[in-house]
Amino acid sequence: MQFPSKLIEDAVHAFATLPGIGKKTALRLVLHLLQNETANTKQLADAILKMRMEIKFCQTCHNVSDADICSICSNGYRDKSVVCVVENFRDIIAIENTRHFNGLYHVLEGLISPMDGIGPEQLNIQSLASRVQTGEIQEIIMALNPTIDGDTTIFYLSKMLSKYEVKITSIARGIAFGGELEYVDEITLARSIQSRLPYENYLSK
Amino acid sequence: MQFPSKLIEDAVHAFATLPGIGKKTALRLVLHLLQNETANTKQLADAILKMRMEIKFCQTCHNVSDADICSICSNGYRDKSVVCVVENFRDIIAIENTRHFNGLYHVLEGLISPMDGIGPEQLNIQSLASRVQTGEIQEIIMALNPTIDGDTTIFYLSKMLSKYEVKITSIARGIAFGGELEYVDEITLARSIQSRLPYENYLSK
Repeated sequence: MQFPSKLIEDAVHAFATLPGIGKKTALRLVLHLLQNETANTKQLADAILKMRMEIKFCQTCHNVSDADICSICSNGYRDKSVVCVVENFRDIIAIENTRHFNGLYHVLEGLISPMDGIGPEQLNIQSLASRVQTGEIQEIIMALNPTIDGDTTIFYLSKMLSKYEVKITSIARGIAFGGELEYVDEITLARSIQSRLPYENYLSK
Repeated sequence: MQFPSKLIEDAVHAFATLPGIGKKTALRLVLHLLQNETANTKQLADAILKMRMEIKFCQTCHNVSDADICSICSNGYRDKSVVCVVENFRDIIAIENTRHFNGLYHVLEGLISPMDGIGPEQLNIQSLASRVQTGEIQEIIMALNPTIDGDTTIFYLSKMLSKYEVKITSIARGIAFGGELEYVDEITLARSIQSRLPYENYLSK
Protein backbone atom coordinates (compact mmCIF):
# COMPACT_ATOMS: atom_id res chain seq x y z
CA MET A 1 0.00 0.00 0.00
CA GLN A 2 1.42 3.38 -1.06
CA PHE A 3 0.53 6.42 1.01
CA PRO A 4 0.22 9.98 -0.25
CA SER A 5 1.72 11.33 2.97
CA LYS A 6 4.29 10.23 5.53
CA LEU A 7 2.03 11.47 8.35
CA ILE A 8 -0.83 9.25 7.16
CA GLU A 9 1.55 6.32 6.80
CA ASP A 10 2.84 6.69 10.38
CA ALA A 11 -0.67 6.95 11.80
CA VAL A 12 -1.86 3.88 9.84
CA HIS A 13 1.15 1.85 11.01
CA ALA A 14 0.57 2.94 14.62
CA PHE A 15 -3.11 1.91 14.52
CA ALA A 16 -2.21 -1.38 12.81
CA THR A 17 -0.10 -2.43 15.82
CA LEU A 18 -3.33 -2.83 17.80
CA PRO A 19 -4.87 -6.32 17.95
CA GLY A 20 -7.54 -7.05 15.34
CA ILE A 21 -6.74 -3.91 13.32
CA GLY A 22 -5.19 -4.42 9.90
CA LYS A 23 -3.95 -1.78 7.49
CA LYS A 24 -7.30 -1.32 5.74
CA THR A 25 -9.15 -0.82 9.02
CA ALA A 26 -6.37 1.48 10.23
CA LEU A 27 -6.79 3.59 7.10
CA ARG A 28 -10.53 3.81 7.75
CA LEU A 29 -9.84 5.04 11.30
CA VAL A 30 -7.37 7.65 10.01
CA LEU A 31 -9.91 8.85 7.43
CA HIS A 32 -12.50 9.13 10.21
CA LEU A 33 -10.15 11.27 12.32
CA LEU A 34 -9.40 13.51 9.33
CA GLN A 35 -13.08 13.99 8.57
CA ASN A 36 -13.82 15.06 12.13
CA GLU A 37 -12.75 17.95 14.34
CA THR A 38 -9.13 18.21 15.46
CA ALA A 39 -10.48 18.20 19.02
CA ASN A 40 -11.71 14.60 18.66
CA THR A 41 -8.25 13.35 17.72
CA LYS A 42 -6.71 15.35 20.55
CA GLN A 43 -9.19 13.82 22.98
CA LEU A 44 -8.38 10.28 21.84
CA ALA A 45 -4.61 10.88 21.99
CA ASP A 46 -4.87 12.50 25.43
CA ALA A 47 -7.16 9.80 26.84
CA ILE A 48 -4.93 6.88 25.88
CA LEU A 49 -1.71 8.66 26.87
CA LYS A 50 -3.10 9.80 30.23
CA MET A 51 -4.48 6.32 30.87
CA ARG A 52 -1.15 4.65 30.12
CA MET A 53 0.98 7.13 32.08
CA GLU A 54 -1.20 7.64 35.15
CA ILE A 55 -2.83 4.26 35.64
CA LYS A 56 -2.04 2.59 38.95
CA PHE A 57 -2.28 -1.02 39.93
CA CYS A 58 -3.87 -1.94 43.26
CA GLN A 59 -1.13 -2.93 45.73
CA THR A 60 -3.29 -5.74 47.07
CA CYS A 61 -4.97 -7.37 44.07
CA HIS A 62 -3.14 -5.76 41.07
CA ASN A 63 -6.42 -4.57 39.55
CA VAL A 64 -6.19 -1.33 37.56
CA SER A 65 -7.05 1.56 39.81
CA ASP A 66 -6.97 5.34 40.17
CA ALA A 67 -5.57 5.03 43.72
CA ASP A 68 -3.02 2.81 45.48
CA ILE A 69 -5.79 0.50 46.67
CA CYS A 70 -8.60 -0.27 44.22
CA SER A 71 -12.26 0.46 44.90
CA ILE A 72 -13.06 -3.24 45.34
CA CYS A 73 -10.34 -3.94 47.92
CA SER A 74 -11.20 -0.77 49.86
CA ASN A 75 -14.94 -1.52 49.89
CA GLY A 76 -15.91 -2.49 53.46
CA TYR A 77 -19.06 -4.32 52.35
CA ARG A 78 -17.22 -6.99 50.37
CA ASP A 79 -16.46 -10.46 51.67
CA LYS A 80 -12.71 -10.53 52.35
CA SER A 81 -12.64 -14.29 52.94
CA VAL A 82 -13.20 -15.20 49.28
CA VAL A 83 -10.71 -14.31 46.54
CA CYS A 84 -11.35 -14.88 42.86
CA VAL A 85 -8.16 -15.38 40.80
CA VAL A 86 -8.38 -13.95 37.26
CA GLU A 87 -6.04 -13.48 34.32
CA ASN A 88 -6.55 -9.73 33.79
CA PHE A 89 -8.77 -6.80 34.75
CA ARG A 90 -11.12 -7.44 31.83
CA ASP A 91 -12.26 -10.60 33.60
CA ILE A 92 -13.00 -8.55 36.73
CA ILE A 93 -15.26 -6.27 34.68
CA ALA A 94 -17.03 -9.33 33.24
CA ILE A 95 -17.57 -10.93 36.67
CA GLU A 96 -18.61 -7.62 38.28
CA ASN A 97 -21.21 -7.17 35.55
CA THR A 98 -22.91 -10.42 36.66
CA ARG A 99 -23.49 -8.84 40.15
CA HIS A 100 -23.22 -12.35 41.61
CA PHE A 101 -19.84 -12.15 43.31
CA ASN A 102 -19.16 -10.13 46.42
CA GLY A 103 -15.63 -11.22 47.32
CA LEU A 104 -12.23 -9.81 46.35
CA TYR A 105 -10.04 -10.50 43.32
CA HIS A 106 -6.45 -11.28 42.49
CA VAL A 107 -5.14 -10.39 39.03
CA LEU A 108 -2.32 -12.66 37.80
CA GLU A 109 -1.61 -10.48 34.74
CA GLY A 110 -1.18 -13.50 32.50
CA LEU A 111 -1.08 -17.28 32.62
CA ILE A 112 1.79 -19.72 32.98
CA SER A 113 2.74 -20.58 29.40
CA PRO A 114 5.86 -22.68 28.78
CA MET A 115 5.34 -22.20 25.02
CA ASP A 116 5.56 -18.40 25.33
CA GLY A 117 8.28 -18.58 27.98
CA ILE A 118 6.08 -17.20 30.76
CA GLY A 119 6.89 -18.79 34.12
CA PRO A 120 5.27 -18.34 37.55
CA GLU A 121 7.84 -15.71 38.58
CA GLN A 122 6.60 -13.32 35.87
CA LEU A 123 3.05 -13.38 37.26
CA ASN A 124 1.55 -11.97 40.47
CA ILE A 125 1.72 -15.35 42.19
CA GLN A 126 4.06 -14.53 45.07
CA SER A 127 1.72 -11.78 46.24
CA LEU A 128 -1.20 -14.24 46.15
CA ALA A 129 0.76 -16.57 48.46
CA SER A 130 1.41 -13.61 50.80
CA ARG A 131 -2.31 -12.81 50.90
CA VAL A 132 -3.18 -16.43 51.73
CA GLN A 133 -0.46 -16.54 54.43
CA THR A 134 -2.28 -13.88 56.47
CA GLY A 135 -4.98 -16.52 57.15
CA GLU A 136 -7.84 -14.16 56.29
CA ILE A 137 -8.76 -15.98 53.08
CA GLN A 138 -10.89 -19.11 53.33
CA GLU A 139 -11.60 -19.80 49.67
CA ILE A 140 -9.76 -19.20 46.40
CA ILE A 141 -11.91 -19.40 43.27
CA MET A 142 -9.97 -20.05 40.06
CA ALA A 143 -11.71 -18.13 37.28
CA LEU A 144 -9.23 -18.75 34.47
CA ASN A 145 -9.87 -19.50 30.80
CA PRO A 146 -10.40 -23.21 30.08
CA THR A 147 -7.25 -23.52 27.98
CA ILE A 148 -4.04 -25.49 28.43
CA ASP A 149 -2.33 -22.42 29.90
CA GLY A 150 -5.30 -21.83 32.22
CA ASP A 151 -5.30 -25.42 33.44
CA THR A 152 -1.50 -25.37 33.90
CA THR A 153 -1.81 -22.24 36.01
CA ILE A 154 -4.61 -23.71 38.15
CA PHE A 155 -2.53 -26.86 38.68
CA TYR A 156 0.53 -24.84 39.73
CA LEU A 157 -1.45 -22.58 42.07
CA SER A 158 -3.33 -25.45 43.74
CA LYS A 159 -0.01 -27.28 44.34
CA MET A 160 1.57 -24.14 45.78
CA LEU A 161 -1.40 -23.29 48.00
CA SER A 162 -1.95 -26.87 49.24
CA LYS A 163 0.21 -26.21 52.32
CA TYR A 164 -2.19 -23.50 53.53
CA GLU A 165 -5.61 -24.07 55.05
CA VAL A 166 -7.60 -22.67 52.15
CA LYS A 167 -10.35 -24.21 50.03
CA ILE A 168 -9.58 -24.11 46.32
CA THR A 169 -12.47 -24.16 43.83
CA SER A 170 -12.85 -23.48 40.12
CA ILE A 171 -15.72 -21.90 38.22
CA ALA A 172 -18.04 -24.55 36.77
CA ARG A 173 -17.48 -25.72 33.24
CA GLY A 174 -20.26 -27.20 31.21
CA ILE A 175 -22.85 -26.36 28.65
CA ALA A 176 -23.69 -22.68 28.35
CA PHE A 177 -27.27 -21.56 28.99
CA GLY A 178 -29.14 -21.53 25.70
CA GLY A 179 -26.59 -23.89 24.12
CA GLU A 180 -27.68 -27.01 22.26
CA LEU A 181 -26.26 -30.43 23.16
CA GLU A 182 -25.87 -31.28 19.49
CA TYR A 183 -23.34 -28.51 18.87
CA VAL A 184 -21.31 -28.79 22.08
CA ASP A 185 -17.80 -30.19 21.63
CA GLU A 186 -17.11 -33.68 22.98
CA ILE A 187 -14.75 -32.70 25.80
CA THR A 188 -17.18 -30.16 27.26
CA LEU A 189 -20.09 -32.60 27.00
CA ALA A 190 -18.09 -35.44 28.60
CA ARG A 191 -16.92 -33.15 31.42
CA SER A 192 -20.43 -31.83 32.03
CA ILE A 193 -21.70 -35.42 32.45
CA GLN A 194 -18.86 -36.31 34.82
CA SER A 195 -19.45 -33.24 36.98
CA ARG A 196 -23.24 -33.54 37.01
CA LEU A 197 -25.14 -31.92 39.88
CA PRO A 198 -28.07 -33.13 41.98
CA TYR A 199 -31.24 -31.64 40.53
CA GLU A 200 -31.84 -29.50 43.66
CA ASN A 201 -28.45 -27.79 43.23
CA TYR A 202 -29.27 -27.14 39.60
CA LEU A 203 -32.53 -25.47 40.53
CA SER A 204 -30.94 -23.27 43.16
CA LYS A 205 -28.53 -21.75 40.64
CA MET B 1 -20.32 -1.76 31.80
CA GLN B 2 -18.69 -0.66 35.05
CA PHE B 3 -15.04 0.33 34.98
CA PRO B 4 -12.56 -0.02 37.83
CA SER B 5 -10.89 3.26 36.88
CA LYS B 6 -11.93 6.60 35.41
CA LEU B 7 -8.80 6.62 33.23
CA ILE B 8 -9.74 3.26 31.68
CA GLU B 9 -13.31 4.46 31.18
CA ASP B 10 -12.18 7.61 29.35
CA ALA B 11 -9.82 5.66 27.11
CA VAL B 12 -12.49 3.06 26.29
CA HIS B 13 -15.01 5.78 25.44
CA ALA B 14 -12.46 7.58 23.26
CA PHE B 15 -11.65 4.40 21.30
CA ALA B 16 -15.36 3.57 20.99
CA THR B 17 -15.98 6.81 19.05
CA LEU B 18 -14.04 5.29 16.13
CA PRO B 19 -16.08 3.55 13.42
CA GLY B 20 -16.46 -0.22 13.81
CA ILE B 21 -15.11 -0.20 17.37
CA GLY B 22 -17.56 -1.02 20.13
CA LYS B 23 -16.98 -0.97 23.88
CA LYS B 24 -15.76 -4.57 24.08
CA THR B 25 -13.22 -4.07 21.30
CA ALA B 26 -12.19 -0.75 22.85
CA LEU B 27 -11.55 -2.52 26.15
CA ARG B 28 -9.42 -5.09 24.35
CA LEU B 29 -7.34 -2.29 22.78
CA VAL B 30 -6.91 -0.60 26.18
CA LEU B 31 -5.80 -3.90 27.72
CA HIS B 32 -3.31 -4.33 24.86
CA LEU B 33 -1.84 -0.87 25.51
CA LEU B 34 -1.57 -1.60 29.24
CA GLN B 35 0.20 -4.91 28.62
CA ASN B 36 2.79 -3.27 26.40
CA GLU B 37 5.48 -0.64 26.91
CA THR B 38 4.47 2.95 27.66
CA ALA B 39 6.50 3.91 24.57
CA ASN B 40 4.03 2.10 22.27
CA THR B 41 1.09 4.11 23.58
CA LYS B 42 3.10 7.31 23.31
CA GLN B 43 3.97 6.47 19.71
CA LEU B 44 0.32 5.85 18.80
CA ALA B 45 -0.86 9.04 20.51
CA ASP B 46 1.91 11.10 18.88
CA ALA B 47 1.33 9.61 15.43
CA ILE B 48 -2.39 10.36 15.29
CA LEU B 49 -2.05 13.80 16.87
CA LYS B 50 0.81 14.83 14.58
CA MET B 51 -1.10 13.48 11.58
CA ARG B 52 -4.24 15.43 12.47
CA MET B 53 -2.45 18.69 13.32
CA GLU B 54 0.14 18.81 10.55
CA ILE B 55 -1.63 17.20 7.60
CA LYS B 56 -2.05 19.45 4.59
CA PHE B 57 -4.46 19.22 1.71
CA CYS B 58 -3.18 19.75 -1.83
CA GLN B 59 -4.25 23.18 -3.06
CA THR B 60 -5.02 21.78 -6.50
CA CYS B 61 -6.71 18.43 -5.95
CA HIS B 62 -7.42 18.40 -2.16
CA ASN B 63 -5.57 15.11 -1.70
CA VAL B 64 -3.85 14.67 1.67
CA SER B 65 -0.27 15.79 1.38
CA ASP B 66 2.86 16.72 3.32
CA ALA B 67 3.36 19.82 1.15
CA ASP B 68 1.11 22.51 -0.35
CA ILE B 69 0.95 20.60 -3.65
CA CYS B 70 0.67 16.81 -3.45
CA SER B 71 3.19 14.43 -4.99
CA ILE B 72 0.75 13.41 -7.75
CA CYS B 73 -0.04 16.98 -8.90
CA SER B 74 3.64 17.96 -8.82
CA ASN B 75 4.74 14.87 -10.77
CA GLY B 76 5.82 16.00 -14.25
CA TYR B 77 5.35 12.54 -15.77
CA ARG B 78 1.60 12.40 -15.16
CA ASP B 79 -1.01 13.18 -17.79
CA LYS B 80 -2.50 16.56 -16.79
CA SER B 81 -5.32 16.31 -19.37
CA VAL B 82 -7.22 13.57 -17.48
CA VAL B 83 -8.69 14.11 -14.00
CA CYS B 84 -10.30 11.37 -11.95
CA VAL B 85 -12.95 12.61 -9.49
CA VAL B 86 -13.06 10.62 -6.22
CA GLU B 87 -14.89 10.86 -2.91
CA ASN B 88 -11.88 10.77 -0.59
CA PHE B 89 -8.15 10.07 -0.49
CA ARG B 90 -8.72 6.39 0.30
CA ASP B 91 -10.04 5.96 -3.23
CA ILE B 92 -6.85 7.55 -4.58
CA ILE B 93 -4.78 4.96 -2.70
CA ALA B 94 -6.98 2.18 -4.15
CA ILE B 95 -6.69 3.49 -7.72
CA GLU B 96 -2.94 4.17 -7.39
CA ASN B 97 -2.46 0.58 -6.22
CA THR B 98 -3.84 -0.68 -9.55
CA ARG B 99 -0.97 1.18 -11.38
CA HIS B 100 -3.33 1.62 -14.34
CA PHE B 101 -4.06 5.34 -14.10
CA ASN B 102 -1.54 8.03 -14.90
CA GLY B 103 -3.67 11.18 -14.75
CA LEU B 104 -4.48 13.55 -11.90
CA TYR B 105 -7.20 13.42 -9.25
CA HIS B 106 -9.80 15.66 -7.66
CA VAL B 107 -11.03 14.83 -4.14
CA LEU B 108 -14.60 15.97 -3.44
CA GLU B 109 -14.36 15.13 0.29
CA GLY B 110 -17.84 13.64 0.33
CA LEU B 111 -20.86 13.14 -1.90
CA ILE B 112 -23.99 15.21 -2.40
CA SER B 113 -26.50 13.73 0.04
CA PRO B 114 -29.84 15.48 0.55
CA MET B 115 -30.67 12.94 3.30
CA ASP B 116 -27.61 13.97 5.33
CA GLY B 117 -27.98 17.64 4.42
CA ILE B 118 -24.79 17.75 2.35
CA GLY B 119 -25.12 20.08 -0.62
CA PRO B 120 -22.71 20.88 -3.49
CA GLU B 121 -21.39 23.98 -1.68
CA GLN B 122 -19.94 21.82 1.12
CA LEU B 123 -17.83 19.80 -1.33
CA ASN B 124 -14.78 20.72 -3.41
CA ILE B 125 -16.91 21.28 -6.51
CA GLN B 126 -16.18 24.97 -7.17
CA SER B 127 -12.46 24.24 -7.37
CA LEU B 128 -13.15 21.45 -9.89
CA ALA B 129 -15.01 23.96 -12.09
CA SER B 130 -12.03 26.33 -11.81
CA ARG B 131 -9.66 23.58 -12.92
CA VAL B 132 -11.85 22.76 -15.92
CA GLN B 133 -12.12 26.47 -16.83
CA THR B 134 -8.38 26.67 -17.50
CA GLY B 135 -9.00 24.45 -20.57
CA GLU B 136 -6.12 22.10 -19.74
CA ILE B 137 -8.40 19.20 -18.87
CA GLN B 138 -9.84 17.10 -21.68
CA GLU B 139 -11.47 14.28 -19.74
CA ILE B 140 -13.10 13.96 -16.31
CA ILE B 141 -13.48 10.38 -15.05
CA MET B 142 -16.14 9.96 -12.35
CA ALA B 143 -14.89 7.26 -9.95
CA LEU B 144 -17.61 7.50 -7.31
CA ASN B 145 -19.33 4.73 -5.39
CA PRO B 146 -22.35 3.23 -7.23
CA THR B 147 -24.85 4.47 -4.63
CA ILE B 148 -27.71 6.95 -4.80
CA ASP B 149 -25.45 9.69 -3.41
CA GLY B 150 -22.73 8.77 -5.90
CA ASP B 151 -25.14 8.88 -8.84
CA THR B 152 -26.66 12.16 -7.63
CA THR B 153 -23.20 13.69 -7.47
CA ILE B 154 -22.26 12.45 -10.95
CA PHE B 155 -25.53 13.88 -12.31
CA TYR B 156 -24.89 17.27 -10.68
CA LEU B 157 -21.29 17.44 -11.85
CA SER B 158 -22.08 16.45 -15.44
CA LYS B 159 -24.82 19.12 -15.61
CA MET B 160 -22.47 21.76 -14.20
CA LEU B 161 -19.58 20.82 -16.49
CA SER B 162 -21.71 20.51 -19.63
CA LYS B 163 -20.98 24.12 -20.59
CA TYR B 164 -17.24 23.37 -20.86
CA GLU B 165 -15.56 21.44 -23.64
CA VAL B 166 -14.64 18.42 -21.57
CA LYS B 167 -15.43 14.73 -22.03
CA ILE B 168 -17.13 13.19 -19.00
CA THR B 169 -16.82 9.44 -18.41
CA SER B 170 -17.55 7.10 -15.52
CA ILE B 171 -15.70 4.00 -14.39
CA ALA B 172 -17.29 0.84 -15.83
CA ARG B 173 -19.88 -0.97 -13.75
CA GLY B 174 -20.57 -4.62 -14.28
CA ILE B 175 -19.74 -8.04 -13.01
CA ALA B 176 -16.53 -8.24 -11.01
CA PHE B 177 -13.72 -10.49 -12.23
CA GLY B 178 -14.11 -13.91 -10.61
CA GLY B 179 -17.78 -13.22 -9.83
CA GLU B 180 -20.48 -15.70 -10.75
CA LEU B 181 -23.53 -14.64 -12.78
CA GLU B 182 -25.79 -16.63 -10.49
CA TYR B 183 -25.00 -14.48 -7.46
CA VAL B 184 -24.91 -11.07 -9.13
CA ASP B 185 -27.83 -8.78 -8.20
CA GLU B 186 -30.40 -8.06 -10.90
CA ILE B 187 -29.61 -4.36 -11.40
CA THR B 188 -25.90 -5.01 -11.94
CA LEU B 189 -26.62 -7.87 -14.32
CA ALA B 190 -29.19 -5.85 -16.27
CA ARG B 191 -26.81 -2.88 -16.53
CA SER B 192 -23.93 -5.09 -17.62
CA ILE B 193 -26.06 -6.47 -20.47
CA GLN B 194 -27.16 -2.98 -21.52
CA SER B 195 -23.61 -1.66 -21.54
CA ARG B 196 -22.10 -4.71 -23.26
CA LEU B 197 -18.82 -4.24 -25.13
CA PRO B 198 -17.65 -5.53 -28.51
CA TYR B 199 -15.53 -8.62 -27.88
CA GLU B 200 -12.35 -6.88 -29.19
CA ASN B 201 -12.70 -4.15 -26.53
CA TYR B 202 -13.17 -6.80 -23.88
CA LEU B 203 -9.96 -8.53 -24.93
CA SER B 204 -7.93 -5.33 -24.93
CA LYS B 205 -8.74 -4.64 -21.26
